[in-house]
Amino acid sequence: MRIVRFSAAGKTRYGVLEGHHVVEYSGTPFGPFKRGRRKFLLKQVVLLAPVVPSKIVAIGLNYRDHAEEVGMPIPDEPYIFFKPVSAIVGPEDSIILPPISTRVDYEGELAIVIKKRCRNAPASRAREYALGYTCLNDVTARDLQRKDGQPCRAKAFDTFAPIGPCIATDIEPNAVQIETYLNGECRQASNTKMFIFPVEDVIARVSQVMTLLPGDVISTGTPAGIGPMRSGDRVEVRIDGIGTLKNGVMSLP
Amino acid sequence: MRIVRFSAAGKTRYGVLEGHHVVEYSGTPFGPFKRGRRKFLLKQVVLLAPVVPSKIVAIGLNYRDHAEEVGMPIPDEPYIFFKPVSAIVGPEDSIILPPISTRVDYEGELAIVIKKRCRNAPASRAREYALGYTCLNDVTARDLQRKDGQPCRAKAFDTFAPIGPCIATDIEPNAVQIETYLNGECRQASNTKMFIFPVEDVIARVSQVMTLLPGDVISTGTPAGIGPMRSGDRVEVRIDGIGTLKNGVMSLP
Repeated sequence: MRIVRFSAAGKTRYGVLEGHHVVEYSGTPFGPFKRGRRKFLLKQVVLLAPVVPSKIVAIGLNYRDHAEEVGMPIPDEPYIFFKPVSAIVGPEDSIILPPISTRVDYEGELAIVIKKRCRNAPASRAREYALGYTCLNDVTARDLQRKDGQPCRAKAFDTFAPIGPCIATDIEPNAVQIETYLNGECRQASNTKMFIFPVEDVIARVSQVMTLLPGDVISTGTPAGIGPMRSGDRVEVRIDGIGTLKNGVMSLP
Repeated sequence: MRIVRFSAAGKTRYGVLEGHHVVEYSGTPFGPFKRGRRKFLLKQVVLLAPVVPSKIVAIGLNYRDHAEEVGMPIPDEPYIFFKPVSAIVGPEDSIILPPISTRVDYEGELAIVIKKRCRNAPASRAREYALGYTCLNDVTARDLQRKDGQPCRAKAFDTFAPIGPCIATDIEPNAVQIETYLNGECRQASNTKMFIFPVEDVIARVSQVMTLLPGDVISTGTPAGIGPMRSGDRVEVRIDGIGTLKNGVMSLP
């Protein structure tokens, strides 16, 4: 199933992608979730961020090639930080470049969407707590990250967490191709087989620290190839079995 | 006004402290907020965290003496990080020591509670966006903070954000005495006059990065005197005009 949240005829709903259509569902994917009778053409709806989490946990340095790229040692446990939920935008929104940064980078990532309350999940059962997987662009003001020596502020700006287009429930998250395109050119190309910590370890380690709630998002880190975006650019994060998260980039006048 | 959230007779409500009583209010302090007719004895209610934020922003190194204590240079802008909302507990809850840390510290702080949506607030008008101020204990697994070289995981455990007991709307937040007691002994004693960044600068700088929503909390950093807590301890953060946030400390069996 590929689950979406969308706006159509002035109402926000959940649905499921079927070809060029979205089938409306009642309820939410975290509880009773029932196929409805209405069907919309994909081009007649506005896709929204597929989930409204209570928190976004992010993992740094989870691909060996990216750790090498930024000159950091391979971590022995996941590096955990947070992006605020105020940074979330949907697959049809723009990334806004903040005036206080001179370098804003894309970071294509696979994000886990949590299905049910989760605390101290053993790795062997951690996958049961995932509803599915989506794309997240962990947009980063690289100059501010360097200045601060830590990622929180640099990754917290409004619009710095595009998520979508859908939550794919049936992919193998530790073996999918992940690519990021800037204006149509491939800039990041890897496979989640390269994860230092696969999805089950990430859920287990994060849930050892904090309770995860239905809808919470854990972004699993970016592969090598990070680089800057400029106003007017178009950035795409593509993950096999999920689809493409496309966002424009702009400065405010 | 000293605003509380409380549970009484099986219902969660907002109210206002008046001597040994809590007067029930209808609505929320972020919109219409009207004095009701019911009054409860303080000892007959359970005080809850006075606010349910969409995010907790925290500021590191905002007292000169604490920067010296941890051997860090005085920052030229606020050091911003996040605590997850899953870490919040109320003034009658316990701090639970996690088994994966061997040193968990108290950090008494004054926290700002945001009243209305706020983005790019100029410092000169930033105080208008504050509903009031409360106490927050920025509980920290110091060993994990050192290992990670950044504070996110170390400060994110469930129960690591006790907040309360009330939101005081009429204090001068840049000139109040702040003290932390461990088992009745004073361990931190300072005054928010010692802030490197006063409350208006903190709101202005944070809102330059992200939209703040009604109820959001910004914790303004801790003074010198941080230290460890052990199971069975009782920790208190006292701020003049707000009151005392008391929490027990325990390990799970």
